[in-house]
Amino acid sequence: MVVEVSGCNPDVLNDLDRVKEILRESALQANAEILELAFHHFAPQGVSGVVVISESHLSIHTWPEYGYAALDVYTCGEKTDPWRAMEYAAEKFEATTIVKTEIARGQEIEGRPRVYGHSVVETEVMRDGMAVVS
Amino acid sequence: MVVEVSGCNPDVLNDLDRVKEILRESALQANAEILELAFHHFAPQGVSGVVVISESHLSIHTWPEYGYAALDVYTCGEKTDPWRAMEYAAEKFEATTIVKTEIARGQEIEGRPRVYGHSVVETEVMRDGMAVVS
Repeated sequence: MVVEVSGCNPDVLNDLDRVKEILRESALQANAEILELAFHHFAPQGVSGVVVISESHLSIHTWPEYGYAALDVYTCGEKTDPWRAMEYAAEKFEATTIVKTEIARGQEIEGRPRVYGHSVVETEVMRDGMAVVS
Repeated sequence: MVVEVSGCNPDVLNDLDRVKEILRESALQANAEILELAFHHFAPQGVSGVVVISESHLSIHTWPEYGYAALDVYTCGEKTDPWRAMEYAAEKFEATTIVKTEIARGQEIEGRPRVYGHSVVETEVMRDGMAVVS
């Protein structure tokens, strides 16, 4: 799940500990098992970080000066819910707009055993409290 | 850059140190500055890992049993070359097929200042020595 969140609280986006905690909790909200965390704060501003989970990873890159962050939620298996992770993170960042595209990874290409591709499932735009606007 | 590599060498895909070294070198090949690494080996097999770079991140998830890995190369700025990172990693994994989709992140939506989306630029399929087949 490829996600852009806009209209976020710049103070949250620029706080390494809060961003890390939000991503960690997003992973747990998605019912994922956390394995590793790697986060970095940039000067003068911005945070990048990744949570490696048993079911793949979550990543975040924030631009506080634009109230914007790029979030990836990559999960596999039936047990995990990337949507829940995305909603949780967007809420904690106080996002007013979310643009989200779902990509199905590792799909075996028809007639070509063990050759894998991916497909773009759909793009959604959500605004102000998760209402779908297009 | 969202990439699936198939037909890879399973021994390479299952070797934590080699996968880590390939991703690290891929980042350098892309002219990126490495900040953090977080890698994990799964039982019985498979490796997940992320390289956080100044210009965003690279991630890898491998399935040695399918000769398959899912690679993301997320960069920003003119200086870095995600294509080079992808080619380098695919070569080292001994991939025979690459399916790659480029997504442009953080694009300001027209008429909506400070609201950001993304767009799928293109998908390419490459086979046997990087030749473009479709």
